[in-house]
Amino acid sequence: MQRSEAHASHGGRQEVWQHDSSALGCSMRYAVYLPPQAQHQACPVLYWLSGLTCSEQNFITKAGAQRYAAEHGLILVVPDTSPRGADVADADGYDLGQGAGFYLNATREPWAKHYRMYDYVVEELPALVDAHFPTTSARGISGHSMGGHGALTIALKNPGRYRSVSAFSPIVAPSQVPWGEKAFAAYLGEDREAWREWDATELIAQARERLPLLIDQGEADEFLSTQLKPERLRAACEKAGHPLQLRLRPGYDHSYYFIASFIGEHIAHHAAALRG
Amino acid sequence: MQRSEAHASHGGRQEVWQHDSSALGCSMRYAVYLPPQAQHQACPVLYWLSGLTCSEQNFITKAGAQRYAAEHGLILVVPDTSPRGADVADADGYDLGQGAGFYLNATREPWAKHYRMYDYVVEELPALVDAHFPTTSARGISGHSMGGHGALTIALKNPGRYRSVSAFSPIVAPSQVPWGEKAFAAYLGEDREAWREWDATELIAQARERLPLLIDQGEADEFLSTQLKPERLRAACEKAGHPLQLRLRPGYDHSYYFIASFIGEHIAHHAAALRG
Repeated sequence: MQRSEAHASHGGRQEVWQHDSSALGCSMRYAVYLPPQAQHQACPVLYWLSGLTCSEQNFITKAGAQRYAAEHGLILVVPDTSPRGADVADADGYDLGQGAGFYLNATREPWAKHYRMYDYVVEELPALVDAHFPTTSARGISGHSMGGHGALTIALKNPGRYRSVSAFSPIVAPSQVPWGEKAFAAYLGEDREAWREWDATELIAQARERLPLLIDQGEADEFLSTQLKPERLRAACEKAGHPLQLRLRPGYDHSYYFIASFIGEHIAHHAAALRG
Repeated sequence: MQRSEAHASHGGRQEVWQHDSSALGCSMRYAVYLPPQAQHQACPVLYWLSGLTCSEQNFITKAGAQRYAAEHGLILVVPDTSPRGADVADADGYDLGQGAGFYLNATREPWAKHYRMYDYVVEELPALVDAHFPTTSARGISGHSMGGHGALTIALKNPGRYRSVSAFSPIVAPSQVPWGEKAFAAYLGEDREAWREWDATELIAQARERLPLLIDQGEADEFLSTQLKPERLRAACEKAGHPLQLRLRPGYDHSYYFIASFIGEHIAHHAAALRG
């Protein structure tokens, strides 16, 4: 594992590391923010999953999260959004292939060989992080758009593993919207039954743990009515009795300006669960 | 003047505007952040000047300044760093030509036709901003690296025009370092006497107003000993009795991670002067 970047930030350190991933079969980068507290004590970890087209860079340069992580003593870990490299399958378009891993394990070729972002985020990356950095066992998970889908599905599929979960502008029902239909058909095949375990709205009914969901959604989001449809998750949560705090924010769009405006509240939410 | 971007941000609005600049003879973009207070009342303006290679985008996406501007009720105005366009002179290298205007008025060809960033920042842009947005007459100015040079020289050359000035990692003595020597030789010619009016360290001696300077400088800045040399400004301020607060920050580099870590303190400094 090699460090490719290191910057002082809000009294702590923003780093980027590169390593060979066995889950993905390629070299991967991830970012880690170490708050000032991590110099002296173990700290909980908040995993952040980014959206379509992003790498590990977008969140660490644009969200302004380090300030709040420093305030609350949280380590932030930010993976890339897909396997990468010249020998990794790709497709035209920003919403399939590299930059668009959808945090699942693909079962169809040419994707199945490398596209195992679920295994990477749930197993390999936390093991690596816990081996190299001063972490406690307390983990939270959050993300944006495709990464919000990732955070919700990963938390719902792994009861007990995360103490807190939140999302910005998540794709809550990928099986029912164009982004998800395109990606799932390619990665998982045409049988929609196989899609259900990667769809937060489907997973809510059978959740074995009622971990509260915190979601912020901009009402001026250009993808709100076509790709995001938070009302479908709300209906599923109401039906299942699953706790959901869905905050609709007038005027906010899908950009990092939205994330930056409310990331402080999300980090405070995670810190309350993780440091409690 | 046309708006090319608008995003809700921290209760206010982050916008980008495009207009035809008469000072520069080309189309220019600039960013303006309107804090929530600007919906109901006039607000002071803090001008931010960016460094080499930047456009109006870097500061607004990476510094996290909107949070603090919203807190203090400051409008932020962020111009591009040079004239732009296919018919605007340019040069190989990141440190001359487009993206490297150095906030001066060029006197040598091929630069003199368009490279008048000083006039643009001091006269044209404020007139435009004051005509279109709810501003008070209170103005501050700040910037990073080449933009720190711009903020210091513009404030020193215009007593009474700015109530506050600060800089991150500024080029304080451009006449004496490679970045400045290259740019000044091209824009102003080889006669070093003509360089003096664009050099903060030279301007300090003759300043007609003792406006206090606030400067943050990272001690791990990769350009500290070759291009920045803050000790030269300190010596000039001591000699002239000019008030300077120079804060050396151990571990911090030249990046936006440094700016983001301390922009809150700079905005509070400007707000105290501008809203007082």
